Amino acid sequence: MAEERENKQGRVAETVTDLLQGGTVPEARRMLNALHPAEIANLLESFPAPERKLLWELVDEANGGDVLLQVNDEVRSGLIREMDDQELLAATSGMDMDDLADFMQDLPKTLTGEILRSLDNQNRQRLEAVLAYPEDSAGGLMNTDTVTVRPDVSLDVVLRYLRMRGEMPELTDHLFVVSRFDHFLGVLRVSDLLTRDPAGRVEDVLDTEAVAIPAETSDREVAKMFEDRDLISAPVLDARGRLIGRITIDDVVDVIREEAERSILSMAGLGEEEDLFAPIWSSTRRRAVWLGLNLLTALLAAYVIGLFEATIQQVVALAVLMPVVASMGGIAGTQTLALVIRALALGQIASRNTRALLYKELGIGVLNGLLWAGILAGIAILWFGRPALGAIIAAAMTINLVVAALSGVGVPLVLKRFGVDPALAGGVVLTTVTDVIGFMSFLGLATFFLL
Amino acid sequence: MAEERENKQGRVAETVTDLLQGGTVPEARRMLNALHPAEIANLLESFPAPERKLLWELVDEANGGDVLLQVNDEVRSGLIREMDDQELLAATSGMDMDDLADFMQDLPKTLTGEILRSLDNQNRQRLEAVLAYPEDSAGGLMNTDTVTVRPDVSLDVVLRYLRMRGEMPELTDHLFVVSRFDHFLGVLRVSDLLTRDPAGRVEDVLDTEAVAIPAETSDREVAKMFEDRDLISAPVLDARGRLIGRITIDDVVDVIREEAERSILSMAGLGEEEDLFAPIWSSTRRRAVWLGLNLLTALLAAYVIGLFEATIQQVVALAVLMPVVASMGGIAGTQTLALVIRALALGQIASRNTRALLYKELGIGVLNGLLWAGILAGIAILWFGRPALGAIIAAAMTINLVVAALSGVGVPLVLKRFGVDPALAGGVVLTTVTDVIGFMSFLGLATFFLL
Repeated sequence: MAEERENKQGRVAETVTDLLQGGTVPEARRMLNALHPAEIANLLESFPAPERKLLWELVDEANGGDVLLQVNDEVRSGLIREMDDQELLAATSGMDMDDLADFMQDLPKTLTGEILRSLDNQNRQRLEAVLAYPEDSAGGLMNTDTVTVRPDVSLDVVLRYLRMRGEMPELTDHLFVVSRFDHFLGVLRVSDLLTRDPAGRVEDVLDTEAVAIPAETSDREVAKMFEDRDLISAPVLDARGRLIGRITIDDVVDVIREEAERSILSMAGLGEEEDLFAPIWSSTRRRAVWLGLNLLTALLAAYVIGLFEATIQQVVALAVLMPVVASMGGIAGTQTLALVIRALALGQIASRNTRALLYKELGIGVLNGLLWAGILAGIAILWFGRPALGAIIAAAMTINLVVAALSGVGVPLVLKRFGVDPALAGGVVLTTVTDVIGFMSFLGLATFFLL
Repeated sequence: MAEERENKQGRVAETVTDLLQGGTVPEARRMLNALHPAEIANLLESFPAPERKLLWELVDEANGGDVLLQVNDEVRSGLIREMDDQELLAATSGMDMDDLADFMQDLPKTLTGEILRSLDNQNRQRLEAVLAYPEDSAGGLMNTDTVTVRPDVSLDVVLRYLRMRGEMPELTDHLFVVSRFDHFLGVLRVSDLLTRDPAGRVEDVLDTEAVAIPAETSDREVAKMFEDRDLISAPVLDARGRLIGRITIDDVVDVIREEAERSILSMAGLGEEEDLFAPIWSSTRRRAVWLGLNLLTALLAAYVIGLFEATIQQVVALAVLMPVVASMGGIAGTQTLALVIRALALGQIASRNTRALLYKELGIGVLNGLLWAGILAGIAILWFGRPALGAIIAAAMTINLVVAALSGVGVPLVLKRFGVDPALAGGVVLTTVTDVIGFMSFLGLATFFLL
């Protein structure tokens, strides 16, 4: 079915390309706009810049805003640069306030004033409320489309109010019960509204135990709450306990997905919103930073090898085998690192269990060290016919796998203490340690025992 | 706030440990069960096996089932082994049918029969419906708690039916409209039910365009649909278009989270459900497989170096510098690889754009190759005072970064064609290529030009 979807989008992509080359623009436009905005966004991301620009011009104005919200940050900035103020204003109309607040960060300053003026008083106040909080906090994530009711009315009154109101915001699974001063009292579940006696009063049905989220809460924390408690929407309160908005699951799912992508891409030193077809020049610059950092660590390892030039000159087999010791340490350390980074993200590591974790990983390091040291020693002896070389590589291998276990636990904990994201920097630091220790133990032991 | 949560769970963890050591069991039990089941699960995962067992005995029977559903697979099997049949039966009571279906996979065969017998006819049929589909398909993900209505009744009748029914399943944002033969016709949104004229008929309000998911759809595909279309719940249909269940967003969020964890852990050769405190012996065995695979690739690189033993003997500086060339290729290739793996997961790569992607990555490879080749050449000349060595390392570096770009695009595409998960095997294959090419180009050029 994943194949099917790819095929469907792929077919549209190919047909649209063919139609454009054949000059049949209206047909291409019809096919493109028949897709869901998220699918259009995905399709746009998959085209190189020139074709992407052509396709973007085919997207209907009615879809434009939704598509812009779905593409990744880098592609969005590219598309926005192609649009004039008129088109940008049209794209923002009808956006939710949380989306509009995010979107405005990408717009030229001149336009943000115009957008604020184009809103009615109520919406302007709402937008300003969202803009007052950081993008990655509950306040920045919230929307302001809350439906509120008072505690002292009957359910029947609520039902009549909703019918008069005519429609409900999407993803409404409960209404918010507030006092006359907007203080949050609890939620009235839609399911209760539908199943309880209409003559009953809101205050008899309202759930005062429902999760309410302070506006400063981080978006990761919000995501965890939604996940743990299976929420659809949750109220956001200011410091004084007043209802200022609500967060809905769709935005939380985006947070979860982005967080996952960030961890995967940041391990390779890439930004979370990297455009698949970013201009070569800017991609080169961004990646050069990571390569430069790695060059430094590689040169450090080279320096260590350089200390033993004389030894290598006498026993060249050392140069042949030394990368094996370093590489096995890197792999073993990365396994521990991945486990620890995940546990840190889940908040499962504290001083109470660090020691037990370290002992466990050291145990695994020693056992796997001995196992592969034995095998590698056998291979080295068969290959070079020098039993002493086998003994030395076995010792170096065991040392490096023990160090790898120590670093796999220690490096992320130390990085975290210094406020550095272990997912970003953990791999570089760890492999630097295992390279240096791998080369040093192997060549050092060889210098001592072989010469 | 993340800190706060950790602190809160951490405080509970430490207090509970203290209380247990002091023998104050009832107080420890009270504190533990005051947490949400998801928090209890997280806490259990963070304790080594002996303490975990003690804590698990403190968890109330009423929480037991929920906690078991929240811990990861490996921890769950461990806890289940500690429970007798009576306790296991108690834990399953009240589980949703989709959860029960998953859970039964972990239970001893003798018990599954007993559980089936303990269900009433309707629930047994429902459970069997879920068990008929693979765990990672829409059918395996679905629950059977659908509320259905007929198209020819009035909204008022629906409202009265719901009130009589008394409660609604969690996460109900719409009711399902079916024909007399259970054929799915569309959905009746709860918001329409609340805001439209009660005298109107269901068929005038029903949404026939709503997403309906065939039971064989893969869980990843289901997650993408929910994400793209901001769904809360969606109907699942069998091959004949009959309604057999519904999928809700809470289960989809779990799929998204698990998929993300799988990609991160599988890059280090770990299983998705690795227990932080798995027994040392079984962890050693599992990780040994990955280390053994890596030993093979490292030995391949060593073999390549071995071909140039004579060259290294004459110019030992080569042994010092060769890991730098290999390592930079690995880093550059991993950057391309991460980008391509993400794009493949999003279905953004097809034959129509592979060439453009390859050219872009090659361009970046050439530019970064030249940049770092120049810098590295300078360093090599300063270090060893041999201009020819600088020229050779610059050439090898450029070659390896171009090969890294080629492999970063090519390796995941080839792996995918052969049905291998690029996230699992991509890194190993890629670094093998960049190691071999790095050593071979550097040492080969040196043999040709320096000797």
